[in-house]
Amino acid sequence: MRSHYCGHLHETHLDQDVHLYGWVHRRRDHGGVIFIDLRDREGLVQVVIDPDDPEIFATAERVRNEFVLEVKGRVRRRPEGTVNPDLPTGQIEVLGKELNILNRSETPPFMLDIEDDEVSEEHRLRYRYVDLRRPDMFKRLKLRSQVTQVLRNYLDHHAFLDVETPMLTRATPEGARDYLVPSRTHQGHFFALPQSPQLFKQLLMVSGVDRYYQIVRCFRDEDLRADRQPEFTQLDIETSFMDEEEIMELMEGMVADLFTRVQGVELPEFPRLTYAEAMRRFASDKPDLRIPLELVDVDDLMKEVEFKVFSGPANDPNSRLAALHVPGGGELSRKAIDEYTKFVGIYGAKGLAYIKVNDLAAGREGLQSPILKFLPDEVVEQIMARTGAKDGDVVFFGADKAKVVNEALGALRVKIGHDLDMVEQGWRPCWVVDFPMFEWDEKDNRWYSMHHPFTSPKEEHIDLLDSEPEKCYSRAYDMVLNGTEIGGGSMRIYRSEVQKRVLKALGIGDEEAQAKFGFLLTALKYGCPPHGGIAFGLDRLVMLMSGARSIRDVMAFPKTQSAADLMTEAPSEVPPEQLVELGIRYYKRAEEKKKG
Amino acid sequence: MRSHYCGHLHETHLDQDVHLYGWVHRRRDHGGVIFIDLRDREGLVQVVIDPDDPEIFATAERVRNEFVLEVKGRVRRRPEGTVNPDLPTGQIEVLGKELNILNRSETPPFMLDIEDDEVSEEHRLRYRYVDLRRPDMFKRLKLRSQVTQVLRNYLDHHAFLDVETPMLTRATPEGARDYLVPSRTHQGHFFALPQSPQLFKQLLMVSGVDRYYQIVRCFRDEDLRADRQPEFTQLDIETSFMDEEEIMELMEGMVADLFTRVQGVELPEFPRLTYAEAMRRFASDKPDLRIPLELVDVDDLMKEVEFKVFSGPANDPNSRLAALHVPGGGELSRKAIDEYTKFVGIYGAKGLAYIKVNDLAAGREGLQSPILKFLPDEVVEQIMARTGAKDGDVVFFGADKAKVVNEALGALRVKIGHDLDMVEQGWRPCWVVDFPMFEWDEKDNRWYSMHHPFTSPKEEHIDLLDSEPEKCYSRAYDMVLNGTEIGGGSMRIYRSEVQKRVLKALGIGDEEAQAKFGFLLTALKYGCPPHGGIAFGLDRLVMLMSGARSIRDVMAFPKTQSAADLMTEAPSEVPPEQLVELGIRYYKRAEEKKKG
Repeated sequence: MRSHYCGHLHETHLDQDVHLYGWVHRRRDHGGVIFIDLRDREGLVQVVIDPDDPEIFATAERVRNEFVLEVKGRVRRRPEGTVNPDLPTGQIEVLGKELNILNRSETPPFMLDIEDDEVSEEHRLRYRYVDLRRPDMFKRLKLRSQVTQVLRNYLDHHAFLDVETPMLTRATPEGARDYLVPSRTHQGHFFALPQSPQLFKQLLMVSGVDRYYQIVRCFRDEDLRADRQPEFTQLDIETSFMDEEEIMELMEGMVADLFTRVQGVELPEFPRLTYAEAMRRFASDKPDLRIPLELVDVDDLMKEVEFKVFSGPANDPNSRLAALHVPGGGELSRKAIDEYTKFVGIYGAKGLAYIKVNDLAAGREGLQSPILKFLPDEVVEQIMARTGAKDGDVVFFGADKAKVVNEALGALRVKIGHDLDMVEQGWRPCWVVDFPMFEWDEKDNRWYSMHHPFTSPKEEHIDLLDSEPEKCYSRAYDMVLNGTEIGGGSMRIYRSEVQKRVLKALGIGDEEAQAKFGFLLTALKYGCPPHGGIAFGLDRLVMLMSGARSIRDVMAFPKTQSAADLMTEAPSEVPPEQLVELGIRYYKRAEEKKKG
Repeated sequence: MRSHYCGHLHETHLDQDVHLYGWVHRRRDHGGVIFIDLRDREGLVQVVIDPDDPEIFATAERVRNEFVLEVKGRVRRRPEGTVNPDLPTGQIEVLGKELNILNRSETPPFMLDIEDDEVSEEHRLRYRYVDLRRPDMFKRLKLRSQVTQVLRNYLDHHAFLDVETPMLTRATPEGARDYLVPSRTHQGHFFALPQSPQLFKQLLMVSGVDRYYQIVRCFRDEDLRADRQPEFTQLDIETSFMDEEEIMELMEGMVADLFTRVQGVELPEFPRLTYAEAMRRFASDKPDLRIPLELVDVDDLMKEVEFKVFSGPANDPNSRLAALHVPGGGELSRKAIDEYTKFVGIYGAKGLAYIKVNDLAAGREGLQSPILKFLPDEVVEQIMARTGAKDGDVVFFGADKAKVVNEALGALRVKIGHDLDMVEQGWRPCWVVDFPMFEWDEKDNRWYSMHHPFTSPKEEHIDLLDSEPEKCYSRAYDMVLNGTEIGGGSMRIYRSEVQKRVLKALGIGDEEAQAKFGFLLTALKYGCPPHGGIAFGLDRLVMLMSGARSIRDVMAFPKTQSAADLMTEAPSEVPPEQLVELGIRYYKRAEEKKKG
């Protein structure tokens, strides 16, 4: 066994005999002496091979990059002038007295001192075992392990029990697309991999477990957007007999404890924003509070203007007309503004109106805008007053269906914040609360749950479920950090009749409810306690904490956008007899086409 | 929020106001007073409803078993004569001053004070959320959570990193049957759920992670025997640059630490048995050392006897002839011995010869046995001498193919040990080492790995891989506790050429090896460190520690023998459009029959 990790050696070990294992990070021959940078997970140390010992010298000459070595030697101070202040072990070196090559290596597929983006991600994923040797990658795995350790300790300390729930479960109605697992013993039947252990954790509350947590794999067979993975990890939490205030306080404490212990920082207070306020001020239900830009609504000013692009939305209750004031944005070039116009187009915005403020005191003359001619003086004055625009600023406008305006201006706010270097340093968490229960889906012509169908409505809105579902608000709470939703939770429905009414609002009648959620509805009848919980996206949280740019960089073996593992080449074909056992056949689309 | 768990109240809380939540375990009306045993996960406390407060009394009258209550009240000493010494809270009671019914319950499907086997397991599984309320079940879930916590702390302390490996992986050649997951984005291709993260953890060693662990779900689509589940949980461990001695020492330390912290017991030393010795003395590679019975081989004595049942096996190198000496077994009735004969028949034994020792000094006259007449005096004497049989004992014989004798006498040894109440109290761990690399499979006419194809042969046996695989021993080590294998591990192959030779011995040529294990063989070429590891069956370990009779009793939501979840009714049918998306069809056997 090693005496030390390479990267842990320093001056306190001077003159000690050490026993090291590691990989050859680099070998240099210099004036008849061989230097080997020996690397293990904790860092590098320089090993000097004594030229006076012919045997060890001969071995050292055979050494190449990424060979696996065992080294015994003595720690000594580096000679004057060869100290490397950039290396934690740079004050010392190891005089190698024994050297064994434990394994050889072919020339690695890429150098280990690259940055994440210097090699194609495909290549990194294919040789993931080499990629993970890069110190940045190892640090992320280590951070992830520390994060789970600290979270677990907090929850253990607060009497939460780690309980495992099944992976081979029942399909999730009302959820995303499930991964299915054909059953061999019940042919024609399928398990589904869990999208979350939502119903199982609720059943654990019915069981009286009282406080549950689990760090658990979840699955969604979705077309992968930028930062989604078919399998991802949740810190899943549920508790009985606590209300949302108590749960939020406990979870704030947990996240604050995590950042103190792992990052060494004190998180600021967690402000609470209602969903309505978050949308109004930041056009987002996961506002990045590090960006000091806010929207103001101006529809009331525009109802009468002749400019239809504004007056139309201003008079439509499903639309929104909002202004985004950007201090110092007057510097933005015509080209930059064209780029932003293209950018909001991604979200469906048909244009991006703006007013540049050159000289506020000069009135209309001091402003610069293609739309100025459509707006009466008093409207312009009120816009300036309401946004607080000053000389050198710009005000952008969004006017469209509320959804389009929110997505476009929400994204623009973040983009401009980054482009103009306005993003504050550090961590800005918040809670978003008071979500609507339902969202209307134009395409399917029905209501969908904004969270999930087990989220409790506010007590005072239960009687609106049938008549005015749009006025129902839920007891949900999302934790947001620097513009990313890291946790989503709610108080759950614990009464069978309320659950049935919510399902009915979603268009699920009693019979269908019984078929799909019968076991839950039954369980609610046998003494279900009031309960609630939350689930944190662990990958995303670790990504934020590590500063990685993708969740793939905080997973040991992630999948590509097409949900494939390039290293093991999964998914793969399987022997036909395996499918016979399952009673399933597959057809390739190409074959179907030939038939058709 | 509660002020206390019900079960935590005791005399130190006298005269304190408490705020409790829980379930009605029992309600009794006695002399105009209502008593409610309020239960939460930590235990019961008696709540007395004051008859002088009409409102709370009316509420209490509506209360039924398993209703969910909120109670505020004051702790007081129970009146003389009503103290319940069997209950931890039995010295006190709570005078209820406020009572809210938070939820009602229908009459539960079974009583909560039953033992595990008083209700059919089907019924318990269907209403698992009620079953888990039983204090025995909750204690097991709690123990399981404590066990993982202590194991994690030990491993965190020893610089192991918790790293997650994929669940959607590549099919496992050479393993058990995989659960398959059809890919939607790569039609005709399938993921497999992992049988263990074996190759991923080895790749993490190639990555230099150095010390890895994970508590991880594994899957096997096997026909379920008594104590198997389609999904089970492993504590999976791997480390580089340590040899088997160091790994075994570290793991012994971990398990000893676990038992000290969770059970409050010091484990004895872990003796090491070679596979050969374990088979010879206990006819098992997972010997239960609590049972003070051992086998002795007697084939050398029987080579010349005329009794073919003995002399046949005695002269066949693939057979075994062994005696099991049972002190005090002379008491066994004819009927009992007939039962044992039937019992060994399960394992293929064609009979069960025995000699009862009535009076050793009387020689042949003092013995009682149907086979005595076939054995010469000196053989009988030597049997008596070698087994050490004394008056009142019995000696059983097994004579057959070695496999049959070992299974039959191995099982008989354990059964008799229990029947005659010989099982020592406490914990008897051991290591079994020096396993053969391969087992010959008569049916398939080929060698199979005794552990798995990545297990390293002993260095000195590498050159026998091609010529004499039966003489190759592996660097595997199994941890056995009270007759149950709780952990299996080995040093792994870390050189590409050795891996190829082992695969070849298994009948897997270079081309097939490349197709099935190409990514591993490639990884071994890029600087793979010497490494080894172990995996513990967490379910089984917790079952042993909790004294539960089945691993189903230490899982929150286990499946039945036919791999179904009776509560959620998984697996289930899925909408046809989901299968269309996956490009698969299933056929029911019945339909196939109709066609045929």
